[in-house]
Amino acid sequence: MKLSGIGSTPLSGVGTARWYRPESDLTLPEKPDPSEVDSDAEQERFETAQTTAREQIEQARQQAAERVGEDEAAVFEAHLQFLDDPQLVGDIESAMSEGTPAEHAVSDRFEEAIAQFEGMDGRMAERADDLRDIRDRLLRVLLDVETVDLSALPAGTVLLAERLTPSDTAGLDPDSVAGIATVTGGRTSHAAIIARSLAIPAVVGVGEVLNEIEEGADVLVNGDAGTVVVDPDEGERAAAGGVDAPVVEERVATADGKRIEVAANVGGEAELEPAAARGADGIGLFRTEFLFLDREAPPDESEQYEAITAALAAFPDDRVVVRTLDIGGDKAVPYLDLPDETNPFLGQRGIRLSLGTHSDLFETHLRALLRVAASEHGDELAVMFPMVTQIEEVESAIERVESVADDLESEGIDYAVPELGVMIETPAASYLADALAERLDFLSIGTNDLTQYVMAVDRENDAVADYHDPLHPAVLRAVDRTVSAAEGRDAWVGMCGEMAGDPDLTELLVGLGLDELSMSAVTVPAVKQQVQQTATDTARELAAEVLACETRAEVQTVLDGEEK
Amino acid sequence: MKLSGIGSTPLSGVGTARWYRPESDLTLPEKPDPSEVDSDAEQERFETAQTTAREQIEQARQQAAERVGEDEAAVFEAHLQFLDDPQLVGDIESAMSEGTPAEHAVSDRFEEAIAQFEGMDGRMAERADDLRDIRDRLLRVLLDVETVDLSALPAGTVLLAERLTPSDTAGLDPDSVAGIATVTGGRTSHAAIIARSLAIPAVVGVGEVLNEIEEGADVLVNGDAGTVVVDPDEGERAAAGGVDAPVVEERVATADGKRIEVAANVGGEAELEPAAARGADGIGLFRTEFLFLDREAPPDESEQYEAITAALAAFPDDRVVVRTLDIGGDKAVPYLDLPDETNPFLGQRGIRLSLGTHSDLFETHLRALLRVAASEHGDELAVMFPMVTQIEEVESAIERVESVADDLESEGIDYAVPELGVMIETPAASYLADALAERLDFLSIGTNDLTQYVMAVDRENDAVADYHDPLHPAVLRAVDRTVSAAEGRDAWVGMCGEMAGDPDLTELLVGLGLDELSMSAVTVPAVKQQVQQTATDTARELAAEVLACETRAEVQTVLDGEEK
Repeated sequence: MKLSGIGSTPLSGVGTARWYRPESDLTLPEKPDPSEVDSDAEQERFETAQTTAREQIEQARQQAAERVGEDEAAVFEAHLQFLDDPQLVGDIESAMSEGTPAEHAVSDRFEEAIAQFEGMDGRMAERADDLRDIRDRLLRVLLDVETVDLSALPAGTVLLAERLTPSDTAGLDPDSVAGIATVTGGRTSHAAIIARSLAIPAVVGVGEVLNEIEEGADVLVNGDAGTVVVDPDEGERAAAGGVDAPVVEERVATADGKRIEVAANVGGEAELEPAAARGADGIGLFRTEFLFLDREAPPDESEQYEAITAALAAFPDDRVVVRTLDIGGDKAVPYLDLPDETNPFLGQRGIRLSLGTHSDLFETHLRALLRVAASEHGDELAVMFPMVTQIEEVESAIERVESVADDLESEGIDYAVPELGVMIETPAASYLADALAERLDFLSIGTNDLTQYVMAVDRENDAVADYHDPLHPAVLRAVDRTVSAAEGRDAWVGMCGEMAGDPDLTELLVGLGLDELSMSAVTVPAVKQQVQQTATDTARELAAEVLACETRAEVQTVLDGEEK
Repeated sequence: MKLSGIGSTPLSGVGTARWYRPESDLTLPEKPDPSEVDSDAEQERFETAQTTAREQIEQARQQAAERVGEDEAAVFEAHLQFLDDPQLVGDIESAMSEGTPAEHAVSDRFEEAIAQFEGMDGRMAERADDLRDIRDRLLRVLLDVETVDLSALPAGTVLLAERLTPSDTAGLDPDSVAGIATVTGGRTSHAAIIARSLAIPAVVGVGEVLNEIEEGADVLVNGDAGTVVVDPDEGERAAAGGVDAPVVEERVATADGKRIEVAANVGGEAELEPAAARGADGIGLFRTEFLFLDREAPPDESEQYEAITAALAAFPDDRVVVRTLDIGGDKAVPYLDLPDETNPFLGQRGIRLSLGTHSDLFETHLRALLRVAASEHGDELAVMFPMVTQIEEVESAIERVESVADDLESEGIDYAVPELGVMIETPAASYLADALAERLDFLSIGTNDLTQYVMAVDRENDAVADYHDPLHPAVLRAVDRTVSAAEGRDAWVGMCGEMAGDPDLTELLVGLGLDELSMSAVTVPAVKQQVQQTATDTARELAAEVLACETRAEVQTVLDGEEK
């Protein structure tokens, strides 16, 4: 049996199928007569369960922070808050005092709260999932049901599930999990991105047919081909095996000598060493959000200085491209008092906040960056601004940089102005690429958001997941417009969306004229290998053929033809 | 004193300032001791107030439906539901039974409900405004405070307000209101759009400085220049006076003979006659949503047939472009069970629903349209699909049309296949304009949504209102790409966003090469006048100069230079 889904980590693994069905084993015992219930004992059972759950969540938080980054660990903070929510706990306690056993009190009261959240809009509705997580955790303790400890799966497990939450995924141990496959999900869902950071082979969105795989089956997860194979034969195993390419330490060029930088996207300090180990030529996207998330107040200048210095130290001879704070959209930061918006992806985010309501934060950020630029490896620093849609924003941002430089000058503090660039992640930026390339040192195409806005599709919305595909002709044309606009100008053009890390697309991207590709560290070796096997001429022909396509299906036909 | 804002209806009017401050006069009397309160009497007072409020809302609903359209009347349905909400009413009644006077019970309980909604996200938070509306209405009745009856203002009133809700605006009488000016709001807010439909001169988003205008002052609202002038002099009055151009019944051409269709956007049957009266050359955008909103079940085929036939009958010799159902996004239709989405503008809307979960609805819609196409004036019918981002969608839509045609054929029912086109309102569509023009009879640029997606900005979000401006260079380039792509192909290109109705931009739009402009009926005469005064050559030069601009400010400089 061979099933198709969306390959989200382009690695392969073989192992034993183990189903993760967290909700199936939580059947409650029948409710006893209230008079038979010892309210005080129930109260005590509940408190013990609460304590155990708190410890479990705290542990999961810490583990996620270490393994994946503070960003993803934040979800557990929310769980801790819900666990101690005074109203919810109060309701549960009063039900117990009236003779309801602890598990029924928990189940009933959480059910009410879940229903309440589910009736609400998008982001609030997602909290219902959090509440379910916590309820199930409490019930598992109360019913003494063995928790499937995702961090302690036997080696060689292929984990199968309806869906994995970011927290489920963050808890996985890459050494024991040979692969994951899920019924739902898309390539850019948070869970898929975490799997990629952890270098766990993953295929998501397989559909209901996944349920036909039996517990204990021998399963190959081929995250490159996007397939899940039961009882794979030797040929299938061999074909999949080649994906995990050997690490190439040196910089690479195409077969005919065109140098292509293959860099890593990094979202936290824990990812620096793995990125270096996989041979990344520096960092093409250093996300600074981890500095701001999961805490009570923004980091001061020196903390930011240290974090960025650490990134440069990990890549002493390579460029490190730092993206300035990209909050808003789907990234909430409680202490920053960001607005609740009906369409957060179309609201105040990225440079809009930095130049608007949060310019103080931006100033501190820039001070740290300009000081790092004057430090030991600072000449390799580059800084880019997210969510640009107007030349006026670039002009303002450059003015802020100059004003911070003036301040540092007059304070007698060492500084330098790094290379400056922008993310091309809005249609507006693609339409203005010529004017941007004229003013800046580089452009970096963020295909995740660019696809989102070109196709007018929320990338977290499963119902329209088919639209969120950078191989749609309109997106490819926006990429082409960007690269073409920079030609004959001094600016280099990179790409730091998920697309850049797909080895199957390396030839196309080289053909489109990109100078740099930045990706999850896990795919750096495979992409370097692809670059070396690419001939620029053939790649250009491929790109021209792809750009002439008018439908997604035509694009696939051209790409498939090339792979033969 | 001359204040600047955003001109949202390009007409001018002079009158007497009258402030509308709906919340200022609702101070509650001190709460008496519960023992002194006659609970039964309070209960009766509340019920009477509820009945009065219900009548008022019902009346407002009817008035809005007649004057503006069913779409905008729908807001009052929500008010009626809240007024009878069992939980809210129950809470108020139990407070009264414990000795709270009716006005305090209403005020306290609504306050709680408002706080609850305000803590939520975007769309839910907006319901808080609805609750405030209803609370104030009830309190006005209970406290016997005179309601400012917006439908009965003295003739020559210039209405000033912090903000006007869509319901406030829908209630205005165009014959007595000489103009409106508000502190907040943007050009494409619902209130602004309603003011435009009613042909009331309007300037929105003036800012706090508007509060300096005193009650009774002599005020000129110049919706063309976007200014509010206190004690205007003769020159200012004269300059503003010319905006309301005389109606031109015949079709118009530029000074050198290029025909430009000047059509109307129509959102309900009530708008047909005013559009014809203002000399519109047909309908460039017939919104079919009014057929689906504010009811319990979708309209059947014959009801749709009648409504579209009525539109063709109102313009017997002119083209009527019907947009297929564009629900989703900000337009909710309870009985259609649309999903709650985190970013509704990036979710399931327009053609996505028609080809997806709501294909039954689409089929009925197409049956009605194909039958109308074979009726008396049916050869003037054109049909366009909204929210297209892929050629695949167009191919599927055409297949559905063909399949409906086959069905009608085999049923022996008269039908014809009308002209088919698409809205260009996503960046993807602008990037695919060549392939679209190859397959379709026409393209119609919807600048409101196109601006929203190109600039990645929610047009209902005041905090980023500056981004929602079609004169940003990126948007103009997307428009240019669309028009250029259709050149040399058979498809005509129109524009039906708010931009098309701004007489100051007519020359630019002619220069960009548009064949058709469609707008709120009120600006048809002024745009026709502008077309007649435009020379194509000069217009092309202007367009070339504007397209070379890299910032919004440069665009303005070029446009201002031309206006002199």
